[in-house]
Formats: sequence, structure tokens, C-alpha cells
Amino acid sequence: MTFVVFTNGLLLVGMGILMAVNALLFPMTRMVFLEAALLTTTVGGLVCISTANRLGEMSRLHSFLLTGSTWITAAIAGALPLWLWEMSPADAFFEAMSGITTTGSTVMVGLDATERGILLWRALLQWIGGIGFIVAGIALLPIMRVGGMQLFRTESSEKGEKQLASAARFASATIWIYLVLTFVCILAYIAGGMNTFEAIAHAFTTVATGGYSTSDSSFGLFDSAYLQWMATLFMLAGALPFAWYIRVLNRGAVRSEQVQALIVTLAVVILVMTAWRVITAGSPVFETLRLVAFNVVSVVTTTGYATTDYTAWGPFAVAVFVCLTAMGGCTGSTSGGAKMMRWIVFMRSARAQIKRIRQPHGVLPIRYEGRSVAQDVMSGVITFFVFYFASVVVLAIALSLFGLDMTTSLSGALTAVANVGPGVGEIIGPAGSFASLPDGAKWLLSFGMYIGRLEMLTVFVLMAPAFWREVA
Amino acid sequence: MTFVVFTNGLLLVGMGILMAVNALLFPMTRMVFLEAALLTTTVGGLVCISTANRLGEMSRLHSFLLTGSTWITAAIAGALPLWLWEMSPADAFFEAMSGITTTGSTVMVGLDATERGILLWRALLQWIGGIGFIVAGIALLPIMRVGGMQLFRTESSEKGEKQLASAARFASATIWIYLVLTFVCILAYIAGGMNTFEAIAHAFTTVATGGYSTSDSSFGLFDSAYLQWMATLFMLAGALPFAWYIRVLNRGAVRSEQVQALIVTLAVVILVMTAWRVITAGSPVFETLRLVAFNVVSVVTTTGYATTDYTAWGPFAVAVFVCLTAMGGCTGSTSGGAKMMRWIVFMRSARAQIKRIRQPHGVLPIRYEGRSVAQDVMSGVITFFVFYFASVVVLAIALSLFGLDMTTSLSGALTAVANVGPGVGEIIGPAGSFASLPDGAKWLLSFGMYIGRLEMLTVFVLMAPAFWREVA
Repeated sequence: MTFVVFTNGLLLVGMGILMAVNALLFPMTRMVFLEAALLTTTVGGLVCISTANRLGEMSRLHSFLLTGSTWITAAIAGALPLWLWEMSPADAFFEAMSGITTTGSTVMVGLDATERGILLWRALLQWIGGIGFIVAGIALLPIMRVGGMQLFRTESSEKGEKQLASAARFASATIWIYLVLTFVCILAYIAGGMNTFEAIAHAFTTVATGGYSTSDSSFGLFDSAYLQWMATLFMLAGALPFAWYIRVLNRGAVRSEQVQALIVTLAVVILVMTAWRVITAGSPVFETLRLVAFNVVSVVTTTGYATTDYTAWGPFAVAVFVCLTAMGGCTGSTSGGAKMMRWIVFMRSARAQIKRIRQPHGVLPIRYEGRSVAQDVMSGVITFFVFYFASVVVLAIALSLFGLDMTTSLSGALTAVANVGPGVGEIIGPAGSFASLPDGAKWLLSFGMYIGRLEMLTVFVLMAPAFWREVA
Repeated sequence: MTFVVFTNGLLLVGMGILMAVNALLFPMTRMVFLEAALLTTTVGGLVCISTANRLGEMSRLHSFLLTGSTWITAAIAGALPLWLWEMSPADAFFEAMSGITTTGSTVMVGLDATERGILLWRALLQWIGGIGFIVAGIALLPIMRVGGMQLFRTESSEKGEKQLASAARFASATIWIYLVLTFVCILAYIAGGMNTFEAIAHAFTTVATGGYSTSDSSFGLFDSAYLQWMATLFMLAGALPFAWYIRVLNRGAVRSEQVQALIVTLAVVILVMTAWRVITAGSPVFETLRLVAFNVVSVVTTTGYATTDYTAWGPFAVAVFVCLTAMGGCTGSTSGGAKMMRWIVFMRSARAQIKRIRQPHGVLPIRYEGRSVAQDVMSGVITFFVFYFASVVVLAIALSLFGLDMTTSLSGALTAVANVGPGVGEIIGPAGSFASLPDGAKWLLSFGMYIGRLEMLTVFVLMAPAFWREVA
């Protein structure tokens, strides 16, 4: 238990240092970040000191506490400078939670004229939120058996000295890949004409599939086919499994059902939608392909940049984008949503069930990546979907209590839980903003992003009174 | 196989006889119903004669064909007089399918001035659709193991002479209860001031939880608290398990988890919504209670009458009614939707899954009505939900291709698949009509009602090419 508290303290110290660096770089917001850094580092330091000499054991149940608490701690610390910068508590917490969960929904308007210190802080929150989630997805979720993630258990989470060393190597390789991707993305953006600040801020939120921009026009500010294709590529890169990168680098093993399914699905959706736009609206082929590819990849990878208001394309586009919002990239990446592994297991399980109705006594094993999927993984995946959609529905009903129409409530709830960013409809669509929502709705959506990022079940396990009896 | 064809022929003859009776009763539409009766009876008779002497065996797979084909046959025969009465093919088929599936969505406007022959025919379609579904739910679905219905297998579907006799007694008892309920409902309506025609037409569609009315104002035409409470009561009666009635009559065993869950849920929803209306809109308590109770029971039992445009109560009411649309009454009744048995098994299974995350090696059996639920029943229930919501989403996307907005597409798809009747939004809400939708949308919605009534999986099994190889 103390280990969990200590880690949160360490996290605060780390974020405090980032605030101090931010204060050094940007004079306009220096005082705000200095104050925040002082407070955060002091609290974090005191917590670390008072717990460091009795860290104790880390049990399986403690992983739930660790994951559940760090995202709250990071959101509160992330909100601190925004609040000191005179945002309301609801706005500051929403913006920080949207950052640290790499969602990308924003309550800020007038970004183009906003101080760079604030803009970089938002981008940074997404960037550390992204790598935090990859590490949690590789190291913690498999042990926690949340949403069928125990499927990935053998790779890195066995006990023993040797395995621990291999897990550490694995984590450091992941962080290196993340750094290299970010760096290459910055260079690619600078080569396309962005200034250094824009390139860094956007690279941070591209690779993290976060979606915060430095402009109200989002990525639409950059009217360059090259930049938009680059962004499309790097959003996709952030949504691929980082364990797969390591496998490819180590053993050249490129085959992955998850990667394949993601790319095939994207290709089909992009081609169908481009054809539909070209045929029904007579749009020019290559420009349409670029627009469609960018915005589809942005939503599916749960980034949430927009280069155009695709909801103006009519009801069919709205329906498709709402469905894509639920999809998600790959497990073990920075992206949110249900993720391809789960869709694959889900589809195969549904097909097997239809077959079972015809042949009640047949044996119908499900396979994934060449291995047979155990019953508990299948149940875990199904349970994930149950709580995923149930969370969206309950959140949408709660939002409707604030007078939000059905389109806004439903797409708002979905985009929060799937950590995507924009919803559909006039208020929170890709051309809108969450700024005008009532405070209550902002708190609800912040909670939605939180449970979405922690794959629902982590939070629901923490909410069960029995958990606290067992962990005590 | 021939047995299936023979049964469809018999169904045609039966419907032809009903058409002939209708022709005798109502002079204004006599020719239409005579022509339809002649055609239907002739075709049905020929089919029966040519198959009667080689009926063959009825295997488990044949039940899928039997269920799947009879609803199509009945819809086509039901549409025939409407088409001869100069409705378009899309309208006539939609109206008949909405009738025979006891959905109650209508494409007709000006019902108050419509010939009684047509109005009675619509009501009659719902009434025979209702008893047809109860019998299928008791006799066929458990053998077919669709959506966890094998849970009810032991009661009446074992083989052997004795069991066959008991199944026949069971079916005849069911039909008697249905007849008595209808008769008592007619008397109750007459006692409340309806004329005999209105009482019969509405009793047919109340007990069948269908929802067709003889007025554009639906049940709102009858501005009588007594009549509205009576309708609330009889809609509920139609949504209770008919096997439970038999058990209560035979053994006085009143306890049923399904009945209890339905009544508790209804009570909670009605009280919360009444309180919300009284507090936020200052509505009078008893009138509000009656309005809320009627419309909530109407949607949950999947009847679809309306006494007011509840969607004008604002976004919260819309959100609640959309969720209620998915709910459904009890299995083995006339109502559609997911049904209480499945929600109970589903909720218990979800709770067990959260517990399993905490205790990966615990044994967590699920119980229903005092018996432990087998793994295949649980999978069946989950599979039902998967295909239920997947059907709604796919249907909604398809509807959006016709330019229908998100609220109309989504609630239209849901109300069709759940066999409820009204959707929400300006077009198909409780104060609207399906008349203005494009023909393509009407065909899609007809298909939605069909798969909804057959609990999705029956139809999807029939769609698998492997089924046809195995049944041949």
C-alpha cells in the first residue's frame, strides 16, 4: 500500500520538475508555473520521504490502486497551473484530465492567442499520459486481468529475477521507441514548414494520439498536404502496439493480427467514404482522400485532430464517425477505445456462437495470433464491452439531465469514454468546443475520460466495497 | 422440410379465413378482403394438399426454417389486403410486418377516418402475431437454444409421448389464457365508455402489446383516467410470462424473479420520472403519475401506445425513453426487446466478472429462479445482447444513408428491433408517423422488426451458408 503512495509522490515530484522547466522556458506564464512547481514538488517530496523507508510488498490488488490513483494525481497536478492561470476548477480539471488521458476534448477557445507556456503544458500532459498508458498496458493491465489483457501475460509479467530484468529492458525499449517516434515526428513537422514550437507541441500530441492543438482550427491550420499526410502516418504509429515494434526490431517478425486488422479496417473505411464523397458530392478525388484519411485515422486512433467539419458531410458521415469513435487502435499503444484485439476476439466469439446454435455439442475454440484464447480471456473481453457501452449509456443519461440533446449527450459520453476528443452535433462537434457545457457536465465527462482510460474495470473494481476489505 | 412448407400453407388458409370473416363484417372493404381471401386460401390450400401426404420428420434445424418462414408468410398475406386497398408495396409490407411482429409503428395517417375493415385487420394481425410469438417462445425457441432460451427447455420440450401430450396441454392452456385476457380487456374497455369496435380493436392490440390504435391520437383519444389505467394494467398483463400464469393457476406459485424484476423496475422508473416532472415542471401529481405510468409501461412492454408526446418533456425524458425502448417485458410473453430474464442473467454475470477480476481463481456460479445457470445459457444471453445492439447500430447506419438524422436513425432502428413502435425525434416520435420516410427506410425497418421478433439469431443462423448444407 505504501508503495502506491510513494509512487504518487514520485509522480508529483516529476511533474513539479516539468512545471519548473516550463517556467524557465516561458516568461509570460513563469509565476504560475513556479508556484505550481513549488507546491507540487513540496507535496510530492514530503510524501516520498515519509514513505520511502517502508515501501512494503506490491500485491496484485495494489496494481488497481496504483493505476487508479496515479491518473487522478496527475490530473490534479496537471490542473494546478491552469487553475492558477485563472481557469475555473471544473475547466482546469477537465482540460488536465483530457490531457493526461490523451483524450483531447478542450474547453479552451482562442488557442491561437494563448500563452505558449500553457499550450506546451497541455501538449506535455498528453505526451506523458501517452507513455504512462503504454507502460501500464504492458506492465500492469495484464496482471490485473482487466478486459482480457491477461492474454498478454506471458510476454513480460512473470515473476523471477530474470523476468524482472527482461521486463525492465522491455519498458526501457518502449520508452526509447516513444522518444524516437516523437523526435522523428518533430523533424518531419519542421521539414513541412511548422515552426519549432508548433512542431514540438503537435508531435507530442500526435504520437500520444492525444489531439490537443495550438490553434482553434486544430490541424486544419496547416494547409499542407505533406503535413497532413505526415500527421496521419504518426497518429497511426502511435496507435500500433509498442510490443510489436520491439518484436519487429528484435526478430523482424512483422505479422500481427491486430496491426493487420487495424490497417485493413482503416483502408476499407477510407476508401468507401472517399468513394461516397466523390460520387455524392462530386468532391475532387485526391483532396477528398486526404481529408477522409486524416479525419478517419484521427478518430480511430483516438487522436481527435480535425482538418474539416466532417459532420457537415451529412447523416451518413455522422453515423460512421460515431461508430469509429468506439473503435480504438491497438492494445499496448497510446490509443483508447475498445481496441482491435478486443474486436477480433469479440467477432470470432460471436461467429462461434452462431455456429454453436446450429451444433450445440460442437467444440469451437477461438484463436488469436496463432494461440487458442482461454475462456477467461473471452469473458474478460465481453465484460469489457458490457461495461464500455453501459458506461457510455449511463453517462449519456446523466448528461441529458443537464439539458443536452441526444446527439450531444451520446456522442459526448462516447468520445469521453473512448478518449477520442471531438463529439458530433453543433456544440461538441469537430468545429465546436466543450467550453459552453455546464460545469456539472464537465465533471461528468472528466469522470468518463478517467474510467475510459483505465478500461472501466479498474475503476469499478476500486468501487466495490469488497475490494477495500480484501486489500486492507 | 415438407412439414415446414405444409405449416406455411396452413397458416395461409387460416389467414384467408380471417380475411373472409372480415369481408363479411365490413361492407366498405368487402371486395378487397374477398379478393385477398380467395388468393390466400387458394395458394395455402394448394400448398397443403401437395405436401400433406409426405410431411416427413421435423428436426431441430427445421425449427429455424419454420420460425423464420412463418413470420414472412404472415407478413406477406397480411400486406395483401392493404396493398389491394391501394397502399404502396413498401407501406403495405411495413404495416403488416409491424402488425404481425406486434411492433405497432405505422405509416398510416388519418386513422380516425379509415374504414373499420382495415383498422380491424391491423389489430387482428397484432393479436395473432402476439399468440404466435408466445407459442414460439414456449415451444420452439427453447429447442433452438436462441439467446439462452434453452434455460426453459425442461419445462415442455422434452421428447416422448407423455411430454408431447403435456406440451399440447401447455399450448392450449396458453391460448385459453390469451383468449380470457382479451375478453376481459374488451369488457373493461366497454365499461369505460369505448364502443364495441374500439374496445375489440384496442383489446387485441393491448394484450398483444402491439400498440395499433384506431385513432391518430393513439390512446390519447380516450381522455379517461379509468381507461388509461385499465390499458396500463392489460399491457402489463400481456408482458408477463404465460408459463407463469399457468404455474400460478395450477400451483399457486406466485414467485418469479422475472415478474418481480419487471414490476420493481417499472415502479422505480415511474416514481423517479413522476417526481422529476412534478419537481421540475410543477405538474399535478396524480395526472403526472398516470401519464408517466401509461407511457413507461407502454414502452417497456413494447406496446407503443402514447397518451402524450413525452419527448416534449426534454432531453432527460428522451434519454430515459430510449433506454426503456431496449428493455422489453418477460420471456414467453407477447412483448419484444431484450426481456427481463436476459437482463437478470446479464447483470449477475457482469457482477460476477468484476468479482473474478479481484479473485481470478474463485468459482462464481450464477443463479436464476433458484437454479444455477449453465455456461451455454450465459453465452447465449450475452450473444443475444451482442447481436441485438449490433443489429441496431448496423440498421441505424443504413438508415442514415437515406439522410435521416442521428436521433431518427438510432431510435428508429432500436424501436424496430425491440418491436416497440414509436421512436423519438420530430419525425417518428410518439406524436409523429413513419409515413414520410423513404421507401428504402421502410423496407429496412421492416427487416429490423422481423429480426427483432425472431430474436436476431434465428435469422442469422438461416443466413449462414453452412446451415443450408446441414439442413439439406
